[in-house]
Amino acid sequence: MQRSFTIAEIARALDARSEGDASIEILRAAEPAAAGRGALALAMDPKYAADMAQGTEAAILWDGADWHAMGLRAAIFVPRPRYAMSGLTRLMDPGPAIAPGIHPMAIVDPTAEIGEGAAIGPFVTIGPGAVIGPRARIASHTSVAEGAVIGADLLLMQGVRIGARVRIGDRFIAQPGAAIGGDGFSFVTPEKSGVEEIRATLGARAAAQAQSWTRIHSLGSVRIGDDVEVGANATIDRGTIRDTEVGSGTKIDSLVQIGHNTRIGENCLLCGLVGVAGSARIGNRVVLGGQVGVSDNIFIGDDVIAGGATKIFTNAPAGRVLLGSPAVKMETQIEINKAVRRLPRLFSQVAELQKAVFKRGDAD
Amino acid sequence: MQRSFTIAEIARALDARSEGDASIEILRAAEPAAAGRGALALAMDPKYAADMAQGTEAAILWDGADWHAMGLRAAIFVPRPRYAMSGLTRLMDPGPAIAPGIHPMAIVDPTAEIGEGAAIGPFVTIGPGAVIGPRARIASHTSVAEGAVIGADLLLMQGVRIGARVRIGDRFIAQPGAAIGGDGFSFVTPEKSGVEEIRATLGARAAAQAQSWTRIHSLGSVRIGDDVEVGANATIDRGTIRDTEVGSGTKIDSLVQIGHNTRIGENCLLCGLVGVAGSARIGNRVVLGGQVGVSDNIFIGDDVIAGGATKIFTNAPAGRVLLGSPAVKMETQIEINKAVRRLPRLFSQVAELQKAVFKRGDAD
Amino acid sequence: MQRSFTIAEIARALDARSEGDASIEILRAAEPAAAGRGALALAMDPKYAADMAQGTEAAILWDGADWHAMGLRAAIFVPRPRYAMSGLTRLMDPGPAIAPGIHPMAIVDPTAEIGEGAAIGPFVTIGPGAVIGPRARIASHTSVAEGAVIGADLLLMQGVRIGARVRIGDRFIAQPGAAIGGDGFSFVTPEKSGVEEIRATLGARAAAQAQSWTRIHSLGSVRIGDDVEVGANATIDRGTIRDTEVGSGTKIDSLVQIGHNTRIGENCLLCGLVGVAGSARIGNRVVLGGQVGVSDNIFIGDDVIAGGATKIFTNAPAGRVLLGSPAVKMETQIEINKAVRRLPRLFSQVAELQKAVFKRGDAD
Repeated sequence: MQRSFTIAEIARALDARSEGDASIEILRAAEPAAAGRGALALAMDPKYAADMAQGTEAAILWDGADWHAMGLRAAIFVPRPRYAMSGLTRLMDPGPAIAPGIHPMAIVDPTAEIGEGAAIGPFVTIGPGAVIGPRARIASHTSVAEGAVIGADLLLMQGVRIGARVRIGDRFIAQPGAAIGGDGFSFVTPEKSGVEEIRATLGARAAAQAQSWTRIHSLGSVRIGDDVEVGANATIDRGTIRDTEVGSGTKIDSLVQIGHNTRIGENCLLCGLVGVAGSARIGNRVVLGGQVGVSDNIFIGDDVIAGGATKIFTNAPAGRVLLGSPAVKMETQIEINKAVRRLPRLFSQVAELQKAVFKRGDAD
Repeated sequence: MQRSFTIAEIARALDARSEGDASIEILRAAEPAAAGRGALALAMDPKYAADMAQGTEAAILWDGADWHAMGLRAAIFVPRPRYAMSGLTRLMDPGPAIAPGIHPMAIVDPTAEIGEGAAIGPFVTIGPGAVIGPRARIASHTSVAEGAVIGADLLLMQGVRIGARVRIGDRFIAQPGAAIGGDGFSFVTPEKSGVEEIRATLGARAAAQAQSWTRIHSLGSVRIGDDVEVGANATIDRGTIRDTEVGSGTKIDSLVQIGHNTRIGENCLLCGLVGVAGSARIGNRVVLGGQVGVSDNIFIGDDVIAGGATKIFTNAPAGRVLLGSPAVKMETQIEINKAVRRLPRLFSQVAELQKAVFKRGDAD
Repeated sequence: MQRSFTIAEIARALDARSEGDASIEILRAAEPAAAGRGALALAMDPKYAADMAQGTEAAILWDGADWHAMGLRAAIFVPRPRYAMSGLTRLMDPGPAIAPGIHPMAIVDPTAEIGEGAAIGPFVTIGPGAVIGPRARIASHTSVAEGAVIGADLLLMQGVRIGARVRIGDRFIAQPGAAIGGDGFSFVTPEKSGVEEIRATLGARAAAQAQSWTRIHSLGSVRIGDDVEVGANATIDRGTIRDTEVGSGTKIDSLVQIGHNTRIGENCLLCGLVGVAGSARIGNRVVLGGQVGVSDNIFIGDDVIAGGATKIFTNAPAGRVLLGSPAVKMETQIEINKAVRRLPRLFSQVAELQKAVFKRGDAD
């Protein structure tokens, strides 16, 4: 049942050069130490080649590698190994097992439109007026609510939630449990709240008032471009009046939270557990490492890169590389980290100076 | 199919004053630049009014605005614009499309009680002995486990999980994937663990022992007051012996984690990705910004506000405004941030002093 | 319907000594103040004993407690109270109500193998070739995808997602919404990306290039040992070539994200909202507090303990106790925290010294 691939077929898929016996059948890719007969060893760097498992017959190698000396019968050579991984894994990924057609236990509203070639699993619901493009693959337990419009080549894994009137482009992929289009977290008090007050005063406040929160409903939805991916159990909230927006080519990892009204540009990467608060604007090609936080209503320029756990409280200009909490330039944060570690010593140096200059110790 | 609203109707819903032609039909609310014919422009501040889209006939304006000069045919005036958003969006929100009655593909245990006027979608399960108040709206794929008791006007979006014996008041709203009543994360080792040891010694420890963790089951459940909302994929764990508690009026954002035995007061706001560890107690009207962390077993007083990414390790008195990790008063953290940025300069100043006083440089 | 337990039965389950009337029937465990008739008061420390509710007849007490003086009719004595909680709660936990057998509304592929004694709820899917051991309890709305293999005594709560070819040992427990086996977050650009560049230069970069991200598919899966638990809405991503691994005895809390290719050892505890980035390796008996972050490709040694919100950017040796961001030894971080709070004073001390030495003030 498992598909196999010849070396020739793999080389062609990678647009790469092969040497040796191009007819060898490959059943799986493997790290060199876990390769062996039937496997294609991924030995794209000399440091991995030493560990090659007994019986390995074929490998992807770095340019110039001596495959004969490694005892191989065939090799594929790639100029940028990391990029080759993309073509190789795309070729060999069997994809999820979703039977063609609409499962009898799926509930598709009669007013919904499903493009040709769909595979829709059991316990799926597609709401009134929803429109789904051709070749959709929708795994079990997924819901697409009323009026949602999604493009071609959709892949929704198990239990994905697509909310009402969400619009998504082509080639969208969502991992299990991703929730697109929950209501925004937006509440208001009858009188000015403590939060509004301290934002104006940077921390000072009059006596706190007992007030309760009234809901601001989300009339907007979520609009997502082409080639977007969303990770497992990630959440993207709908906008209040206009839509929350995610640009084409942007990839969102598991457990990321995107607040209401946020606008995210194209080709961004948002890693696991990133939180983007309401109405933030994020440019194109922005990379946010794991657990990064972005405050509400701020602007992150194009090509900003923020290291893991960076907390961005204020606007960041295009191209800035950020680190730390609060976020500063990465090089500044590295300086700060060094300085902070040297602090205890600085304290004793100052105490020593005080003693010498004032003939007294630190009065601590 | 889309409902429309007259200016008169909207003004009445907002308890606001209108001027001009109160019979104009409004189909949607819009930001001024995206308004136009059929839209109600939200121009509650002069800075937005300049951008008004061609053809806009009606707007919500700040008190004293000259609507004639803006070329409008009608206007509604509100004293606190942010609060008016609440009434306006409530009026115009069509709500989720859940057909009245119990869907034939829902499984409601014969011993469960469902109040009158329920709308329960497909692939919903309601367990033995569960009790749900009148006018419940329960979207597809949701589960309400055995013995759960929920009040009137419930709204559960797709895929919400309500655990066994969870008790919830009236007007509860949960966004897709929220999980109320997972087991608490509570484990114990036969002998004292490394964690117990370093809590006593602040970091020092004897040789680590190889032990494995034994589960403490959660006999308690979760008890939630009235008017509570829980965001997409947020989680609230059940208590060990007593219930985990969330007070009336408290709003919990997406991807928030509330640990076992926690007691959260009334009218709190917990923003996205907040984590509250086990047995923490949080007072009333507390606001925790995005990604805030609260340690286990600590107490946060009434009206505390913690800025985004604040990590609270120790008790916080009522009314305190917190920032930073570890959390300190917001004004202190602002001072600390300034000082830290000036540190590299301080180091050179001290080096210069050492040179002058001791006739030598920093021995670094 | 509620089961009761005699004092004798409870003492036997805890392997503990009882005194007084061992035939008293216990319906529930309770904190002392909430105990009363029918309850077993958990008064394992003298400080709780004072609050004992009227009518309480039985309690678990610390060694040497005078139960007669407390007006009790029976008592159980335990040497390590926290550990006794494990046995007591295991005994009294009724467990989830999942009817024996396979619910008619579950869809089990004919090629799947289900062990004897299974209880599988409604709206469950078990995919082609999946193998599930004996005595499995699988709550509603859960999916087990093609080729997944799971051991004995499985408990999956509502809406859990087990991905294709995931392999799990015995006694696995997953709370609602946990997603095991989503695709890894792995993308590559045709040319070197800004992220690759700044990793080499620590922040410096040439002009940013406009590139888009190409997907690296996940050919690996997830392999999990025995006695592992995963919390509500937590996510564990599949590996790229090899499997992501979680060792036996490891417990993972709600909303934790485990990246692709990660290897986690045995008997670890990962608390709520922890994020472990791709290809990190974590040893045995490691404890990560809430919201801890672990960078990709680093190594955390055995017995490391990291306090809440610690951000680990570099390798950590075995036994290290960590705190802070970036993580340092806990004792160092406590020193740093003290020093940072004293910084404003240090600045004025240096200014004073400058005045004295150079006859001028701080030139700020």
